[in-house]
Amino acid sequence: MAGNTFGSLFRLTTFGESHGPAIGGIIEGCPAGLKVDQDFILTEMQRRKPGQSQITTQRKEEDFVEFVSGIFKGVTTGVPIGFLIRNADQRSSDYEHLEEAYRPSHADFTYDQKYGHRDHRGGGRSSARETAARVAAGALAKLLLNQKGISVKAFVKQVGAVILGKDHDQLDLSLTDSNIVRCPDEKTAQKMIKHIEDVRGLGDTVGGVVQCVIDNVPVGLGEPVFDKFPALLGHAMLSINAVKGFEIGDGFSAALKKGSELNDLFNEIKKGTPITKTNHSGGVQGGISNGMPIFFNVAFKPVSTLMMEQPGLSKSGKEVKLGAKGRHDPCVVPRAVPIVEAMAAIVTADLLLLANNNRISDGQQD
Amino acid sequence: MAGNTFGSLFRLTTFGESHGPAIGGIIEGCPAGLKVDQDFILTEMQRRKPGQSQITTQRKEEDFVEFVSGIFKGVTTGVPIGFLIRNADQRSSDYEHLEEAYRPSHADFTYDQKYGHRDHRGGGRSSARETAARVAAGALAKLLLNQKGISVKAFVKQVGAVILGKDHDQLDLSLTDSNIVRCPDEKTAQKMIKHIEDVRGLGDTVGGVVQCVIDNVPVGLGEPVFDKFPALLGHAMLSINAVKGFEIGDGFSAALKKGSELNDLFNEIKKGTPITKTNHSGGVQGGISNGMPIFFNVAFKPVSTLMMEQPGLSKSGKEVKLGAKGRHDPCVVPRAVPIVEAMAAIVTADLLLLANNNRISDGQQD
Amino acid sequence: MAGNTFGSLFRLTTFGESHGPAIGGIIEGCPAGLKVDQDFILTEMQRRKPGQSQITTQRKEEDFVEFVSGIFKGVTTGVPIGFLIRNADQRSSDYEHLEEAYRPSHADFTYDQKYGHRDHRGGGRSSARETAARVAAGALAKLLLNQKGISVKAFVKQVGAVILGKDHDQLDLSLTDSNIVRCPDEKTAQKMIKHIEDVRGLGDTVGGVVQCVIDNVPVGLGEPVFDKFPALLGHAMLSINAVKGFEIGDGFSAALKKGSELNDLFNEIKKGTPITKTNHSGGVQGGISNGMPIFFNVAFKPVSTLMMEQPGLSKSGKEVKLGAKGRHDPCVVPRAVPIVEAMAAIVTADLLLLANNNRISDGQQD
Amino acid sequence: MAGNTFGSLFRLTTFGESHGPAIGGIIEGCPAGLKVDQDFILTEMQRRKPGQSQITTQRKEEDFVEFVSGIFKGVTTGVPIGFLIRNADQRSSDYEHLEEAYRPSHADFTYDQKYGHRDHRGGGRSSARETAARVAAGALAKLLLNQKGISVKAFVKQVGAVILGKDHDQLDLSLTDSNIVRCPDEKTAQKMIKHIEDVRGLGDTVGGVVQCVIDNVPVGLGEPVFDKFPALLGHAMLSINAVKGFEIGDGFSAALKKGSELNDLFNEIKKGTPITKTNHSGGVQGGISNGMPIFFNVAFKPVSTLMMEQPGLSKSGKEVKLGAKGRHDPCVVPRAVPIVEAMAAIVTADLLLLANNNRISDGQQD
Repeated sequence: MAGNTFGSLFRLTTFGESHGPAIGGIIEGCPAGLKVDQDFILTEMQRRKPGQSQITTQRKEEDFVEFVSGIFKGVTTGVPIGFLIRNADQRSSDYEHLEEAYRPSHADFTYDQKYGHRDHRGGGRSSARETAARVAAGALAKLLLNQKGISVKAFVKQVGAVILGKDHDQLDLSLTDSNIVRCPDEKTAQKMIKHIEDVRGLGDTVGGVVQCVIDNVPVGLGEPVFDKFPALLGHAMLSINAVKGFEIGDGFSAALKKGSELNDLFNEIKKGTPITKTNHSGGVQGGISNGMPIFFNVAFKPVSTLMMEQPGLSKSGKEVKLGAKGRHDPCVVPRAVPIVEAMAAIVTADLLLLANNNRISDGQQD
Repeated sequence: MAGNTFGSLFRLTTFGESHGPAIGGIIEGCPAGLKVDQDFILTEMQRRKPGQSQITTQRKEEDFVEFVSGIFKGVTTGVPIGFLIRNADQRSSDYEHLEEAYRPSHADFTYDQKYGHRDHRGGGRSSARETAARVAAGALAKLLLNQKGISVKAFVKQVGAVILGKDHDQLDLSLTDSNIVRCPDEKTAQKMIKHIEDVRGLGDTVGGVVQCVIDNVPVGLGEPVFDKFPALLGHAMLSINAVKGFEIGDGFSAALKKGSELNDLFNEIKKGTPITKTNHSGGVQGGISNGMPIFFNVAFKPVSTLMMEQPGLSKSGKEVKLGAKGRHDPCVVPRAVPIVEAMAAIVTADLLLLANNNRISDGQQD
Repeated sequence: MAGNTFGSLFRLTTFGESHGPAIGGIIEGCPAGLKVDQDFILTEMQRRKPGQSQITTQRKEEDFVEFVSGIFKGVTTGVPIGFLIRNADQRSSDYEHLEEAYRPSHADFTYDQKYGHRDHRGGGRSSARETAARVAAGALAKLLLNQKGISVKAFVKQVGAVILGKDHDQLDLSLTDSNIVRCPDEKTAQKMIKHIEDVRGLGDTVGGVVQCVIDNVPVGLGEPVFDKFPALLGHAMLSINAVKGFEIGDGFSAALKKGSELNDLFNEIKKGTPITKTNHSGGVQGGISNGMPIFFNVAFKPVSTLMMEQPGLSKSGKEVKLGAKGRHDPCVVPRAVPIVEAMAAIVTADLLLLANNNRISDGQQD
Repeated sequence: MAGNTFGSLFRLTTFGESHGPAIGGIIEGCPAGLKVDQDFILTEMQRRKPGQSQITTQRKEEDFVEFVSGIFKGVTTGVPIGFLIRNADQRSSDYEHLEEAYRPSHADFTYDQKYGHRDHRGGGRSSARETAARVAAGALAKLLLNQKGISVKAFVKQVGAVILGKDHDQLDLSLTDSNIVRCPDEKTAQKMIKHIEDVRGLGDTVGGVVQCVIDNVPVGLGEPVFDKFPALLGHAMLSINAVKGFEIGDGFSAALKKGSELNDLFNEIKKGTPITKTNHSGGVQGGISNGMPIFFNVAFKPVSTLMMEQPGLSKSGKEVKLGAKGRHDPCVVPRAVPIVEAMAAIVTADLLLLANNNRISDGQQD
């Protein structure tokens, strides 16, 4: 209700601020019997972690996930999986000057108005640190999806005006992590990195776009009305900090086209399932997966915290000069890749479990 | 769970297919004491109804909302409001040829795979007729929001390649309904209408974009993590048939910009609330309303049902020729305007009720 | 949220007051492919209906269930099942004198305080008529449970001080409906009927106890912590009008006993499942079904509306004389039998669907 | 969904097994601005803790609640409150012999069947240790209720056949904690203690009844249909380990009475609110609080783990001799008192927050 829970059957509830002792969460609904590959989880956490390259913030976060329940002898037991990620390297003093000031385009002012009692250190609940809990839960969701052969892969498609002119199906996504900007096209990657470094040199920040593809999704996932597959994906993505837009398949460019250009005609039948000649719809029809790859784009605005000076507002309504004293990313998009994947994996795992009750199984009906 | 419910406190649950006796729903959480303006509700329903102009389908739908509970002597009683909208003018024979065939880019195939037992008449639950229930509930949500002075207004910003180059704040939104395409700029409206008529002449369809603005929202609505205001709006919009994209504030174009260009600096203080010089963020910071107008765009693909012949797939996997026999819109975007408004109103009403428990009120704490 | 929904996967949401045009509801989560036996549903509704015998109220209620969605050619389609039960024979004039008065032990006063705007005719949402929607949904749940061989059977165990000294396992429950009081022991039934008639002669009412048994429940239904099987059953039963107590297995008498007397020792193994020698626990251990019959008792207070005169309170705080002008039951317990069964069936169906995701199935784990 | 969450607005989600590193939970919905009295919370935890007297188990549990989020400078911030309670003094070896055996009347067998992968140490999720998280959350709920003057007080009313023949209104509940059995009547308390010691001497266990009263509840809490106040209380209580029965007001004895005996007639008007002469209903009418004290009884069966030898079942279906090697309570009822209070406080806090949206406030309606 209070918006700290995501999902209905496979479900994550999180807690924690960047400057408390720990963040963490509870994963419910993970069926018993899943082998928990700790190395994989650690790898996923490392992909999100700040300080992983010269184009990300040099702030260090301890991102070790301490599971405290629901796993016994390396296998899930079916009961809730509680986990903690300790906060280390907290430099609250970086934020002391913000106790009485609102930064522009931050949640400082809205929080103060909403709750009347704000933890001013590091953005509180609005800190991007909260996404670490999503990545931990997403890693578990990925392990569950792996059982069914479903994969979730995201990559950076755009940084500022540097745009990769190819979609997932023209790229080798195994190359995504081969460079620090997480763009699977090496040439474009180098341009992106250059652009981020230029922007950082100015004390400024820059936005971008992440594309994500969910492959090998069985036909029939997604609910027909309010919980269409794209609606849940959109909810998930727009709940990530700094996200301003979401589109599935042809997205906004679909608005420019005619029906005869956009309809995905059926082609061959593969293992009893019809395959479409095109995939403008992005793998869903009527909100339900049709067996084609599900792909979508997520737009991130540039980080609001700049290293250059900018005016803020004091609580008493006066303009104050603010310079960022913390350590912040010039571009969050490379680090957003595992977060987008995590949320997509959680949505897919949830719909997968829900689909177990779509119909009376053959053996049941007399 | 099964995705027929939207909202947590102000909540809509719907049922119904286009070719059953009725569609309808239950509205929960509307506080007691709200005067129900039936004329207003009727007007809203008329705005969504097919057959309202020469550029919409000539299919007639009876869109009278029959409230069967929760209202006594014209005022809400606080208990659930059940309502029905009878289906009339059903021409099931228009769909008989579809019993054994899947239309391209429709939910026919995905439904059959998901449920194994499909009502092939008119798209079943995936029919756009389902949105009538949303408009009915949205009308009630609007009445509730009116109590607080909050308004929700949408208009058509794009039809195919005809794009209105202005945003809500440069337009007189009282003109939206003055033309049949619901674009408040008369010149652009005429171009849009011409374009839709051209496309219809070809037996084709065309997509577009709706912009919506929620005005006078109090500061503090929206939850900080998973239920950010834009996340709920995105969920709501992407659950509408044919929607392929959602963006708030500067949206996808924010990805192109630098932080220094995009940050909304504080300006004057109005009634104790700081106003920002710009509104790139679209009225939210950290997922929470900041008192500025909330605005967003919704992209609609062209309707998949064409009046020209196109190939479909028979259940046995053979290509079949399909021509639309029903009556369908060449462009749904004008009729989508009230649907977008309705879903935005439901989201806002829900967050308004949730915000009543943000903090201990002054009188309560000792 | 507002308490009009019961269940998580198999889920009922209801609306309606006794004196509006209709009551009804939406059943979500019923898998596609279930044959809907309309005769069975009608029979269940008849069992709850007032006016069915000389010991129940002579008020007539039309209890025909009109399904308006989710069923096609007699089979569920997997989408929400909307239904209506029209209110007929409304004699609002019977209640006019109550517009300004609160009856003792009724919801009149609490409603007025809660909502400030009350439909005074017939108890509004608190009317027992609301239970008709539960019986309709319960009938569907029973059909679903039948697929798995699960049965739900209740009977009257006590009326006032007339107590049937046997439990379900010593009785032939096929005899329950053979008399109007729904007690499967004919001798006791006659005493109960006599007692009810005596009480009615005095213008008074009398309470009682219903016992219910759920048979053939697979091992493993129920969730270990908050949603233990008995917790959900208790919630369900205590949500029925006039219910004041719930106990499972030995219930309150278990408080009198020692552990050595109460533990259910294992006996033989039947089809791989251990059977216990006794069933003091009522078929659950740790909140989870153990394969033994689940049984529980539900205590009903006497109806508060008496045919004798009793003092009420006017809105202005003065004592007023009230005599019931409506038509009311001297004892609701016989008519409560199908309601108890319906709610038990809904709980069981919900847990059955939830259990589909308890563990990774054998074929899935590598 | 998976039953680890309780409440809708004021909401607790828990995790943890008795033999993992920690148990804990997340409290959502607590409004910002509540002062958190840590001493009070510690006191509540101590009341539930094992090893507190000679009639409870001598097993030591570290019950220090470590809050890791949602509290800043001693005051709630409105965001989720995560907390941990470390497990100490784990003697897993006490349970090793249970890896291959099912204890009678325990969840061993049902767990194994449900999940196929069980943490056999100490009952896993079914361990009564889980209730520590409830007491922690309940303490916070009590602090919230205190703001409104609402109190929640429970006491032991029965141990085996030793029954206190008085109800809450004839007792001085400030005496409850003056003896180790938590019975406010000293004479009865001594008999109860003697009985528990006798039973322990036999290696046996004994059940009992807890009565709880919620005082000063405003009129209008509770929802009219599925979430009646008693239904939520019943759900809450029956989710506590070893609970077999729940009754509100006159409960099961109401089934014995006539309506004319049981109706609560109105008496004087106090501060605008009518007071009833009697309180057979236990403070609710139609599921909604009427301003009178809410009281209810909860029946606990004797603990299933005996210190005497009793037969269990091996996984291969053979009878095995079991003697308890752990440290267990001969009677849990005294320690259940704070657990009953905690769950009652959580239910009441939740309904209190929900009631904020019952009606349009005076100032809002034009």
